[in-house]
Amino acid sequence: MRIVVMNCNTSAAMTEAIGAQARAAARPETQISALQPLWGPESAEGYYDSFVTAAAVLDRLHTVGFPFDALVMAGFGEHGREGARELLEVPVVDITEAAAQVAMLLGRSYGVVTTLARAVGQIEDSLRVAGLLDRCAGIVAADLGVLELEGGAAVDAVLAAAVRVLERGAEVLVLGCAGMAALAEAVAERVDVPVVDGVAAAVKLAESLVDLGLATSKRGSYAPPREKRRPGWPISGA
Amino acid sequence: MRIVVMNCNTSAAMTEAIGAQARAAARPETQISALQPLWGPESAEGYYDSFVTAAAVLDRLHTVGFPFDALVMAGFGEHGREGARELLEVPVVDITEAAAQVAMLLGRSYGVVTTLARAVGQIEDSLRVAGLLDRCAGIVAADLGVLELEGGAAVDAVLAAAVRVLERGAEVLVLGCAGMAALAEAVAERVDVPVVDGVAAAVKLAESLVDLGLATSKRGSYAPPREKRRPGWPISGA
Amino acid sequence: MRIVVMNCNTSAAMTEAIGAQARAAARPETQISALQPLWGPESAEGYYDSFVTAAAVLDRLHTVGFPFDALVMAGFGEHGREGARELLEVPVVDITEAAAQVAMLLGRSYGVVTTLARAVGQIEDSLRVAGLLDRCAGIVAADLGVLELEGGAAVDAVLAAAVRVLERGAEVLVLGCAGMAALAEAVAERVDVPVVDGVAAAVKLAESLVDLGLATSKRGSYAPPREKRRPGWPISGA
Amino acid sequence: MRIVVMNCNTSAAMTEAIGAQARAAARPETQISALQPLWGPESAEGYYDSFVTAAAVLDRLHTVGFPFDALVMAGFGEHGREGARELLEVPVVDITEAAAQVAMLLGRSYGVVTTLARAVGQIEDSLRVAGLLDRCAGIVAADLGVLELEGGAAVDAVLAAAVRVLERGAEVLVLGCAGMAALAEAVAERVDVPVVDGVAAAVKLAESLVDLGLATSKRGSYAPPREKRRPGWPISGA
Amino acid sequence: MRIVVMNCNTSAAMTEAIGAQARAAARPETQISALQPLWGPESAEGYYDSFVTAAAVLDRLHTVGFPFDALVMAGFGEHGREGARELLEVPVVDITEAAAQVAMLLGRSYGVVTTLARAVGQIEDSLRVAGLLDRCAGIVAADLGVLELEGGAAVDAVLAAAVRVLERGAEVLVLGCAGMAALAEAVAERVDVPVVDGVAAAVKLAESLVDLGLATSKRGSYAPPREKRRPGWPISGA
Amino acid sequence: MRIVVMNCNTSAAMTEAIGAQARAAARPETQISALQPLWGPESAEGYYDSFVTAAAVLDRLHTVGFPFDALVMAGFGEHGREGARELLEVPVVDITEAAAQVAMLLGRSYGVVTTLARAVGQIEDSLRVAGLLDRCAGIVAADLGVLELEGGAAVDAVLAAAVRVLERGAEVLVLGCAGMAALAEAVAERVDVPVVDGVAAAVKLAESLVDLGLATSKRGSYAPPREKRRPGWPISGA
Repeated sequence: MRIVVMNCNTSAAMTEAIGAQARAAARPETQISALQPLWGPESAEGYYDSFVTAAAVLDRLHTVGFPFDALVMAGFGEHGREGARELLEVPVVDITEAAAQVAMLLGRSYGVVTTLARAVGQIEDSLRVAGLLDRCAGIVAADLGVLELEGGAAVDAVLAAAVRVLERGAEVLVLGCAGMAALAEAVAERVDVPVVDGVAAAVKLAESLVDLGLATSKRGSYAPPREKRRPGWPISGA
Repeated sequence: MRIVVMNCNTSAAMTEAIGAQARAAARPETQISALQPLWGPESAEGYYDSFVTAAAVLDRLHTVGFPFDALVMAGFGEHGREGARELLEVPVVDITEAAAQVAMLLGRSYGVVTTLARAVGQIEDSLRVAGLLDRCAGIVAADLGVLELEGGAAVDAVLAAAVRVLERGAEVLVLGCAGMAALAEAVAERVDVPVVDGVAAAVKLAESLVDLGLATSKRGSYAPPREKRRPGWPISGA
Repeated sequence: MRIVVMNCNTSAAMTEAIGAQARAAARPETQISALQPLWGPESAEGYYDSFVTAAAVLDRLHTVGFPFDALVMAGFGEHGREGARELLEVPVVDITEAAAQVAMLLGRSYGVVTTLARAVGQIEDSLRVAGLLDRCAGIVAADLGVLELEGGAAVDAVLAAAVRVLERGAEVLVLGCAGMAALAEAVAERVDVPVVDGVAAAVKLAESLVDLGLATSKRGSYAPPREKRRPGWPISGA
Repeated sequence: MRIVVMNCNTSAAMTEAIGAQARAAARPETQISALQPLWGPESAEGYYDSFVTAAAVLDRLHTVGFPFDALVMAGFGEHGREGARELLEVPVVDITEAAAQVAMLLGRSYGVVTTLARAVGQIEDSLRVAGLLDRCAGIVAADLGVLELEGGAAVDAVLAAAVRVLERGAEVLVLGCAGMAALAEAVAERVDVPVVDGVAAAVKLAESLVDLGLATSKRGSYAPPREKRRPGWPISGA
Repeated sequence: MRIVVMNCNTSAAMTEAIGAQARAAARPETQISALQPLWGPESAEGYYDSFVTAAAVLDRLHTVGFPFDALVMAGFGEHGREGARELLEVPVVDITEAAAQVAMLLGRSYGVVTTLARAVGQIEDSLRVAGLLDRCAGIVAADLGVLELEGGAAVDAVLAAAVRVLERGAEVLVLGCAGMAALAEAVAERVDVPVVDGVAAAVKLAESLVDLGLATSKRGSYAPPREKRRPGWPISGA
Repeated sequence: MRIVVMNCNTSAAMTEAIGAQARAAARPETQISALQPLWGPESAEGYYDSFVTAAAVLDRLHTVGFPFDALVMAGFGEHGREGARELLEVPVVDITEAAAQVAMLLGRSYGVVTTLARAVGQIEDSLRVAGLLDRCAGIVAADLGVLELEGGAAVDAVLAAAVRVLERGAEVLVLGCAGMAALAEAVAERVDVPVVDGVAAAVKLAESLVDLGLATSKRGSYAPPREKRRPGWPISGA
């Protein structure tokens, strides 16, 4: 099967890293295509960026150019997943939802470590709307920008945030940014709880849905977009 | 003071109608500028359209070209309000929030009549994220498209939906689409509860916030967007 | 238009201060009549006082003696608003609700600073019943009596409480006592978030409702009181 | 022990009936003193009446004139219980809370049958504030005034409402008005679920608290009223 | 009347202590029979033990061998209460529910002190499922095993945990383990809030239900177990 | 990898069917071992049965006799999952949780069709405790016993229940009984929404967790059972 893993920002380095993380999680026979929008912010940090990336991702979906079996949306806490579910026939798995679901199978409560304090509320809303907030013990920021997630200092900052969320009762740790995947191993070595990376989790859930022959419900909320005039859209002219 | 009332879709007729509705509600000395995005769907009906309009509205805000004192976002249940709050210094009032708030001052519970069944979940999420869902007795669709909201048949359909939501205990009626403003009077004449139009409500709240000298908090969630590269954005090249 | 601003206690000094605060917020053409009950506690601090003032305010409404267009109930977290909505035809705006609503338009979450620790639970219940608690980040007491809200020490105590509630994630500050209005400016100068005074907020919302031609729903919860014998009531013999 | 059972309205007939119901539930050695306020509505039907009775009950408590061991507040869904808890040292049991608690021990969910539709929201709020709403399957009105609760037609109306709330999944029936006690037996004979009368339930819980030597916590919300001037209060001049 | 008080573990010393505590709370004419399962853990500490004790208690109920009027289930936060309600005709009172209910009559919020940190989540779930979590200010572990609850060090550990939960706003203290009953007096002497022991509370509620002539609803969730083959069950061969 | 799929009841036919369903969902290289308890009810229908099966399943886990990589607990809405998580090192996936999680990835809300009305509350509690209830639109009983789930009449009954839950807004259908797996295909052909069988879903999630190298958190709630005396346990003497 072929899974499109869509980075929400326009950082090619991050797209590459996400793709590698996805491939490491996927089964050998699963083909991973890591894509990114054709325009928009090089990192999504806050609501403004998030809404821009949501549209940029939807725009990008019009020009994929090859068939695929599932979409992984690799922006933690970012908007747009419901729009992709409307647009596509294939299953759509958001890394926010995937990480929370996997975490909830491993412990009674989970905690999220994210990048900037400004993202905390947005992630909380993303989980609330997904119906997955009840067992979240907390969301704590490491005070790192999305593009600063490299090296030992980043690991230390993430670990410090992890300690705070474990103190609030979290029994599983969720890395709340697609760009944190590279830190997962280093973090996991230094905490005594399972560490869940959303990209890896989402790839496995996407494979599972395809295996089960299940796709997005087209009854109700995710019915296909209505036919209508949308001048100037999609931006990429597909 | 000058208030920008932003239609979320590209229907010029609806922008005009929303502007008229806003002017009717505004104080004489308030200047209303009704704008619409430069691209995007001619009506927002579902998540896909909603996320496109969210970005289109944010894009449009970059090219307003004159100072203003408050923004009214005139898409009922549509996404993007938090992004505008990040981007702007002036207060931002979403008609979804405004309508619910005004309704909650008038009755113990309110009900929403909207256009299509597919919008029900999206509106529910919009109210939940805004923290205004607790006293919502129900959201009922009139099964009309956004661009079909004219004439006696539309009034009848809205009334039928109104009856259903009143039966669920609603004590105030909220018209859940900016395009329903023109029907407000006709509906109000035929139900025994207050009828709240979001555009009018939002204009009054925007005036109130400006009068009070209050603007969006820049601490936390709505801090200004970070400086960064956003290739190809804004679309309109501002 | 004429708005009655009803202090809930019998402190003439506080009634005067509330009236001044209301006038400062009102439009020039709005006439503010600041009233107080004819009996009852000189300050409302706790449930016992709150229930006494609720009845005293309802009693006072029977003897206003002139027509008015809206009622502002100026007791933060105090009981009685639903009773006034039953009794009157005109809109009723409670400062608790008004402050929370305005705050929710300005930030993703708000915090309340109140007087005594014993009031915290009561305010929480008032917001819960109003359906406005979801985005409240906390309610913190300054440990000041209602009649001690003057001078630099009071400002310091309120600021200390403000710091605590901001640490819990509040992005907007609500002054949780009508008597704090005089401190609003001094507090606002020293915190980096919007500061909302309920009296000012309520006056603007009351003006808005009157402008919109909206009044309390008489269907359901706030239907007029039934005709019946009420021996000895109203106390003031109206 | 001596328990004061306080009717919230000024109907002597209802006070007598409530007293009889309390005595039937009490242990032989428990002395029941059924009291009523010295002023106020002859029945509490809606928020306006409810707030008047809350103060009237608090006023009455100042003139009891004999020692007692517990107070039962016999107004279903009526305000004031927290004020009495502040004022008194002895335990205070509200029939709303007592009925819900007893019902929750008997079935997974309970339903309330009350008098008028206007009371439904008020009862819901009373249960919500008491933290007892989660397992309430519904509150249904029999469309009877408080003073019409007699005879076969009343039983029929209550039964019809009972059927509706059982259809919503209630497994226990709560009679949501102190005046319904006389109908309890007739109703219980015709439904296949336990029927809980709040007055009886409250008397047993009051006896239990006295037996256990437990009284209201004076730490926090229910600390004694502060010393202060309360001109004209209590009304009865005690 | 005769009440069976069922310890959930196989510690005879604890069964004896629970029986004594129950007798101290019961009315003189109430006969208390303290029983324990015929197999299973000598203390219940965690989910694994809890589910074993749930079955062991149900098994034991098949061999009681004498009639009784009510069952008290004396495992705080342990599973099984709903199963006993299905099996028996008489009322079943769980000490978790009883303690929370009594506490909620005495203060606006309550806190639980329990034994081990691992029990916190389980108790929270027990209260949530019972619909009694809303007014719980916190559950704090004293870090003592169930069989270590004796002596001054145990009192100190419980007091330290009590202080923490009072700091979170609890106004009443619930002892969250049947084995803590012996410490109740010593703890109560050193905190300024009411201290509720679940066994005592449950005995009083059981007496109350029997007095009221009320038994478990057999409509819906607690209908009698269906006739069927259950090979090897009950274990004790009754 | 090897996955143990544990039927909760002692019906060998159902164990076989569950095993077949699991194998159909598993990857070719995954080995499925379908087991059942050594004692207990031949079907779990209600709380009493559920608690017996919880212990019987835990007992059975002591005598598996071969290593395995994950456990699937195949009792929909039944108790015990948290106990298994304590006992085992490998991941434990409950079909209730798995079905709800998969359904939530496919639609904005899901509905459950179960067997008997008495199970509705128990399933609701199972989902609530798992933190997965928010997006459940309803749980509807087909009024069939667990052992009657065969043939056309069963399909019709399940479909009738499905229609009811879809009318409440469900966008995905969850089959709320392990024994319904055989009906999944026939049901799916006749409704226009995805149909999720919990056994299949759980097998995929179990494979995913094993692939990801994730196991149950041993910090907090699911720490291993403490060493202690458990006379007579495990029943099977392992």
